[in-house]
Amino acid sequence: MSPIRFLFDYISPYAYVAWHGAMTLAERHGRPLVPEPILFAAVLDAHGQLGPAEIPAKRRYVFRDALRKAHAAGLPLSPPPAHPFNPLTALRITHALDGAERQRAVTALFAATWGGGPGVDRPEAVVEVLDAAGFDGRALVERAREPERKAALRASTSAAVGEGVFGVPTLLVDGELFWGCDSLPHLDAFLAGRDPVPADLDARWRDLPVGAVRPGSARR
Amino acid sequence: MSPIRFLFDYISPYAYVAWHGAMTLAERHGRPLVPEPILFAAVLDAHGQLGPAEIPAKRRYVFRDALRKAHAAGLPLSPPPAHPFNPLTALRITHALDGAERQRAVTALFAATWGGGPGVDRPEAVVEVLDAAGFDGRALVERAREPERKAALRASTSAAVGEGVFGVPTLLVDGELFWGCDSLPHLDAFLAGRDPVPADLDARWRDLPVGAVRPGSARR
Repeated sequence: MSPIRFLFDYISPYAYVAWHGAMTLAERHGRPLVPEPILFAAVLDAHGQLGPAEIPAKRRYVFRDALRKAHAAGLPLSPPPAHPFNPLTALRITHALDGAERQRAVTALFAATWGGGPGVDRPEAVVEVLDAAGFDGRALVERAREPERKAALRASTSAAVGEGVFGVPTLLVDGELFWGCDSLPHLDAFLAGRDPVPADLDARWRDLPVGAVRPGSARR
Repeated sequence: MSPIRFLFDYISPYAYVAWHGAMTLAERHGRPLVPEPILFAAVLDAHGQLGPAEIPAKRRYVFRDALRKAHAAGLPLSPPPAHPFNPLTALRITHALDGAERQRAVTALFAATWGGGPGVDRPEAVVEVLDAAGFDGRALVERAREPERKAALRASTSAAVGEGVFGVPTLLVDGELFWGCDSLPHLDAFLAGRDPVPADLDARWRDLPVGAVRPGSARR
C-alpha cells in the first residue's frame, strides 16, 4: 500500500486538526501515514500568494473557523503564544526524524502549538516539549541548526511546490492531492474507490478558454 | 427572524454548491435567505489577494474539489463555456431584482453557469436563460447596462469588503460571517445556538503578538 503523505507546517491550525483526522483515516484504510514538514511561507512565496493570516479580515475568520473544526473533531484549540511565529526549528527537527519517531514528534509539536502548550517559536520551549515526549530535546534543537537540515527543509518545500502543493495541510496519495481539513472526507472516498472525479476532468478544464482576466492579476 | 445573507459571484463553483445548501438550511431554520451579488474580482483587489483560478496549481485543484462537493450535495457540475468569465451582466441583473424573483434568477443563472447550461458571459445566453426562467430576458439585460445598476453592484461589493468579506460565498447572519461551502455545518450549529466560539475569542487573538513576518508580505 502506498503511503498517505501529509505535508504541513506547524503554523496552520488546520494542519493540526487535519493531522489527527489523517491518523484515524490512515489507520482505517491500512495505509502508512508519512508527515512531511514544509515551510508554508515559502509555498506562498512560490505562488505569489498571501497567507490567510496576512489578510486581516481572513485572519480573524480563520481562528473562529479553525476553532469550530477542532471542536467538531473533539480537539482542544488555543492560541499559541504568538502568531504568526517562526516554525523553522520545529520543522527542521521533524525533518531530521523518521518513522514512528517523526510521527510522535509531530503530535507533540502540534499539541505544543495549538493544544494549549508553550508554542514552538522559542528553542527553549521546543526542548521542553521534546523532552516531555521522550526525546533529547537539546540534541534535536542543535541538529536543527546544521546546514544540511536547513537545506533538507528547503528542498522538501521546493519539491512540494513542484508537485502542485499550494497550501497546508496537503495530503498526497497515489498522485492525487487533497488540500485542507475539509478534504479528508474526499480522501476517504478516494481510498475507498468512490472518487467522483472522472479521468478526463483535467483535460476538459485545461482546454477551457479563459473568458476574462482581472486587470493586474498574475494571469495577465 | 433576521435573514441569512448570501454574498456570492457566479464565477465561483463553491457559491453554486453553497447556494443550494443555503436554501435547505434557511428553510430548516425558518430564516429568510437573501442572495446578494458581489464582484469577487473586486473583493480580491481590495485585499491584494490572488483568486484560486489565478494560481495554476490551485485552479486545477479547485475544479476537482468543487466537483467532489457538488457530488456529495447531489448536484450536477460541469465546466461553463469559459472560465474565468465576465459575470457582470448576470450580477447586475440579479441585483436589479428583489425577493422571490431574485432567488429564482440566482438559481437559473447558477444552473446556466455550473449546471451544464450555456454560461452567463454572453448577453444572448443570459437572455435565453432568463426567458426560460419566466423573465423578460432582453429587458433585464438592457437594465444591466444602466449606470445606476453598475453603481449599485460596486456599492454592494465595497460594503461587503467593509463588513469583512474576503471571499465567496460568504453567509452573514446576526453579525457572524461564514465563508465557503464547508462552513454551512458551522452556520447550522450557530443558528441552533451551538456555536463553540467563545465571546472573547476575538480579543484573545487580536492581542496575540506577531512573532514572525514573511519578508515581502503585506504585513511588513
